[in-house]
Amino acid sequence: MDKENKFTQSQTDVLIIGAGPSGLMAAYWMARYGVNARIIDNRDTKVFLGHADGLRARTLELFDSMGFQHRVIQEGSISTEANIWVPGPQGNIIRQAQIDIFRVDESPFHNTRLNQGRIERFILDSIREHSDLDVERSVIADSLEYDEELSNDPNSYPITVKVRVLGEDDSNPPCGQEIENGSEAAGNVVNRSNLLPDDWADLAPRKKPQRTQVETIKAKYLIGCDGAHSWTRKQLNIPVEGSNTDHIWGVIDVIPLTDFPDIRRVSVVNNAAGTILVIPRERGLVRFYVPVQTCEAGTTDRFDRSKITRELIRARVQAILAPFIFDFKECSWWTVYQVGQRIAAQSTKDNRVFLAGDAVHTHSPKMGLGMNMSMQDGFNVGWKIALAVAGTLKPEVLETYASERHPLAEMLLDFDRHWSPMFTDRKPGVADTKASEIALIGGRFEDFADGWKVFYPASSLVRKAEDNAEFACARHMIPGERVRPVKLRNQADGGALWTTRVLESDGPFRILVLAGDIRNPMQKQRLETLARILAGQSGSCISPLSRYLEIPGRFKSPVDVLTVHASPWKEVELFDFPEVLRPFDPMKGWAYDKIWCDDACIFDRYCDGRAYEKWGVDRVLGALVVIRPDQYIGWVGELGDVEELTQYLDGILVKKSPTNGVHSVV
Amino acid sequence: MDKENKFTQSQTDVLIIGAGPSGLMAAYWMARYGVNARIIDNRDTKVFLGHADGLRARTLELFDSMGFQHRVIQEGSISTEANIWVPGPQGNIIRQAQIDIFRVDESPFHNTRLNQGRIERFILDSIREHSDLDVERSVIADSLEYDEELSNDPNSYPITVKVRVLGEDDSNPPCGQEIENGSEAAGNVVNRSNLLPDDWADLAPRKKPQRTQVETIKAKYLIGCDGAHSWTRKQLNIPVEGSNTDHIWGVIDVIPLTDFPDIRRVSVVNNAAGTILVIPRERGLVRFYVPVQTCEAGTTDRFDRSKITRELIRARVQAILAPFIFDFKECSWWTVYQVGQRIAAQSTKDNRVFLAGDAVHTHSPKMGLGMNMSMQDGFNVGWKIALAVAGTLKPEVLETYASERHPLAEMLLDFDRHWSPMFTDRKPGVADTKASEIALIGGRFEDFADGWKVFYPASSLVRKAEDNAEFACARHMIPGERVRPVKLRNQADGGALWTTRVLESDGPFRILVLAGDIRNPMQKQRLETLARILAGQSGSCISPLSRYLEIPGRFKSPVDVLTVHASPWKEVELFDFPEVLRPFDPMKGWAYDKIWCDDACIFDRYCDGRAYEKWGVDRVLGALVVIRPDQYIGWVGELGDVEELTQYLDGILVKKSPTNGVHSVV
Repeated sequence: MDKENKFTQSQTDVLIIGAGPSGLMAAYWMARYGVNARIIDNRDTKVFLGHADGLRARTLELFDSMGFQHRVIQEGSISTEANIWVPGPQGNIIRQAQIDIFRVDESPFHNTRLNQGRIERFILDSIREHSDLDVERSVIADSLEYDEELSNDPNSYPITVKVRVLGEDDSNPPCGQEIENGSEAAGNVVNRSNLLPDDWADLAPRKKPQRTQVETIKAKYLIGCDGAHSWTRKQLNIPVEGSNTDHIWGVIDVIPLTDFPDIRRVSVVNNAAGTILVIPRERGLVRFYVPVQTCEAGTTDRFDRSKITRELIRARVQAILAPFIFDFKECSWWTVYQVGQRIAAQSTKDNRVFLAGDAVHTHSPKMGLGMNMSMQDGFNVGWKIALAVAGTLKPEVLETYASERHPLAEMLLDFDRHWSPMFTDRKPGVADTKASEIALIGGRFEDFADGWKVFYPASSLVRKAEDNAEFACARHMIPGERVRPVKLRNQADGGALWTTRVLESDGPFRILVLAGDIRNPMQKQRLETLARILAGQSGSCISPLSRYLEIPGRFKSPVDVLTVHASPWKEVELFDFPEVLRPFDPMKGWAYDKIWCDDACIFDRYCDGRAYEKWGVDRVLGALVVIRPDQYIGWVGELGDVEELTQYLDGILVKKSPTNGVHSVV
Repeated sequence: MDKENKFTQSQTDVLIIGAGPSGLMAAYWMARYGVNARIIDNRDTKVFLGHADGLRARTLELFDSMGFQHRVIQEGSISTEANIWVPGPQGNIIRQAQIDIFRVDESPFHNTRLNQGRIERFILDSIREHSDLDVERSVIADSLEYDEELSNDPNSYPITVKVRVLGEDDSNPPCGQEIENGSEAAGNVVNRSNLLPDDWADLAPRKKPQRTQVETIKAKYLIGCDGAHSWTRKQLNIPVEGSNTDHIWGVIDVIPLTDFPDIRRVSVVNNAAGTILVIPRERGLVRFYVPVQTCEAGTTDRFDRSKITRELIRARVQAILAPFIFDFKECSWWTVYQVGQRIAAQSTKDNRVFLAGDAVHTHSPKMGLGMNMSMQDGFNVGWKIALAVAGTLKPEVLETYASERHPLAEMLLDFDRHWSPMFTDRKPGVADTKASEIALIGGRFEDFADGWKVFYPASSLVRKAEDNAEFACARHMIPGERVRPVKLRNQADGGALWTTRVLESDGPFRILVLAGDIRNPMQKQRLETLARILAGQSGSCISPLSRYLEIPGRFKSPVDVLTVHASPWKEVELFDFPEVLRPFDPMKGWAYDKIWCDDACIFDRYCDGRAYEKWGVDRVLGALVVIRPDQYIGWVGELGDVEELTQYLDGILVKKSPTNGVHSVV
């Protein structure tokens, strides 16, 4: 970006519109890959209170790979059960069921609630650790032009976005994008006393230019993360499809004064007066979701929003929790919003402009999944675009964003269509049958929400077995699914870490060498044969580690290697492993973080030596797996299958030209 | 403090000199209790690199109670084994022993290394969260006067310290306190690239006044945390006692280039060329402690410090690790220092001036314990002074600082006297016998270092059983020792937390009601009888919860209550417990964080329902325990022993006057 011309015209490789959770996740990858990118937002500060709050275990696994799950766990509120309350025999309400929503041994993390503002804080801090990329706030996008004729040239700038950088003189509210519902309008007060110190600096709006200025930004790629009323989507004339009705919801975050016994547990409460969802949160807060009304999509006929007040929501909660008392004096945030189950017809325009998060899918808030899906969208599209811009990923792989994420958005809406009426169409007197239905749908939904049923279809990035069968050598390593988390012991230092952290989201694809038991001489020999190929010493072919174009300024190779062996930790040494698996760097010495051991250790009950078992891998023979930069499994084979592995990578990554390492699109 | 007179004369309740780890720990308590205090330091910035780095599990337990252990765990490097290397048969060195230094089930935490600068960061952040107290840097103490005649009046200001606040015009180095060895002098470079972003703001020295200014500070209490060459100690003419010899050590933090297999494991390596200690650290660093020379205490005869260079240290490490190769290109920090085993004759002057940390005890660095002992000193003295200044703690209790901490300093030196010669007096050829000695002494030392043998003697704060026997009702709850950490389930929300976090270091004494199994009607009745007394409803006496003077502005009572029951979590409800155990606040509602359950839960392998067993408490009958603000056990009894409990508290805390709650020193 040319500083001199900033207020007239500039170029960037990637422009992200919207700095909510999905936009920030995409920006994280720009920071990690060192890509020339910008991220703009029409709001003048980040979010501080309220908004989304539900975090699924799967999302925490991603946060672990990004380096900040520990902050979420320290501050957040977890839940492991969900309770169903229904009318009792004497006009009271009774706890009908207590459902375990935690799956033993499936994830190191629990479903957690923490407000969106803190999540934004953590991602922003992580971005700052890796680059100078920062959110440009009070920037309004005014127009978008897209030149289709340039779409096939990856080095072209087919996107032109005109933006206004709001100055002190601009007293108009932002109008390029619709303002998110809620917040100040509802009288929510943000100040130092209800924020943690690390958010104080963001409390004051940034210093603005004196006058509003106009800038024309040319971009290679654009990611629209600008919410349910996405401005980007509208500029592209992408229609949204879905229900003809909207639901009006009231939401309050309060410190409750109540004798309802499950106020600190996730609960669905329904009686003749209606149904509410009770969601305990951090710092003593509890959130209540209260369905208020249904109306025709996009209209507010029969619905006067000004009539929905905090007092009305309070009264609704009181009526539904009765005969338990309910009240509050402290309300940290509240809002009213109108939403239907809808999905954008496309998530991309020519794989140059992408939509992510609420810009693609809207649904009821009660699944505690919206922010998760949105962040995973941003995570998925982010690494792909960054790696494509770097010249390392073949541009056609960008097609997988839509093929991987769009079907999930459809599944999400499908669940919501079953789930939402439990709340909005409730009839008095059928409470108990409804409750069991909630439990049933809820159970199936959890499978999906926690990421076990989130598999990506076959594509250049996902090499499935024939008939979608499992691979015999690694039966529970399913291409298109995530790696099942296990705790491993580092061979060099003996410390135990979850794979969610070991498989850091730092950029490269990873060849996971499941070396088996190298005390077995045959197996040691197999490993050494593999190592010779990886080291480029086999003569016949170029190593997949040195075959592909580097990520400029960050990684010499977009393919890294990580070894997990199954010998007892004390019976082998780091230097027993071939050098290519623990390569030497003239500044950093040997790589001590690349050889891991699946062995139980007495000092950590979770480091139980069951990784191979959980992954369905033979402890002697091992296997070979490729993990994508986003921790999804891309390819599975045996230790000897390097040729097939290379074919897989050839389909994704740009090879160096044989002589000088120069970009050669094949 | 009167702002107008700041540069002439001012008053503060507590003045802390030195903002290293011990001073910051004391300052933490000032922040938590809201005490009027100041903390000054002669350096112009915090520490960033190098310096102390060893953290014991016990220290992490304290950090958990302060709310930031998760940051240490995320960044630090842990170790669970220590290795002994000795000369082998062919002129090589071999691994003779691998010693487990982790004790299963004793602590949730492991021995961890992280540089002092990060620890200072975390404590500073924690202080900031609770008050406006901030370190005043570039402030030099010039003189100290102490008026003994005022020592018996707790409201007097017997201490007068004149300080210079260094201004831009002052080009002289600080001279009031001696400058710590190492750092810039040794050519260590600190810049953004080797710091984490949250330290960047502290990298630039604070804005100084234009001219150096002089201020006279009157204080009720003074804590000298000003290091081995303590200026405070010298002003009080407190002699130091101990060895007549000093040892000269070289220390380097480097990214090693080596094929020594245990470079990422704690190792003692000795051969004919000498002995070194290898300590792996965060971010790929490894620290080497290299004994260089011995000389007469306080002198540098036969020792020219300028001759000890980084190159000399490199060469020593190379010689000792040979035939393994060793070198480095990146050195983050190095220093040379001279130290002997010495202890101050007293840790206090009239219990108005206190010394803590290195100002009291100096010893060799190789035990990885110095920073821990120093922080625990500051932690111990901090809460006592703060609570005394608040008028809530009887001033005579301050005597327990010396009686609790001084004997430990002596133990520490005693260990060092046995331990240090292993390194400094090594003779070639006796390596293997020495090694087994190291293992033996090391093993006994670990007991002490990890806090199991850190018990405080009987005092007003520690009510021991006769003959120091255990109490039958809580056999492993030993007054004067810390609470053995266990993981408990919160009754209200079902989440599992370690007691190290539940017993937050937030100020009050805690009555720990081990309620037993309340499904048993007899036991329920016993609990209700106790609750009536605690609620002040028994008629005969004032509840210990409302009997003592408040902590002004922070807590209505310096005594809080926490319940841990042994009924199955699903079989009781929060509201089954008497109200006084989960009191109602008109703003915050019922207290949901005060009733905990000792029950196993499927979602957490550490929440195993073994708390009562580990504490030696009967699951039906329970017990009653008082936990001091620093998590040490003060008193143990049965559920019915409220009268004895009150006697214990009466000996420590100042009672309200019966009519108006006004301070009445008894």
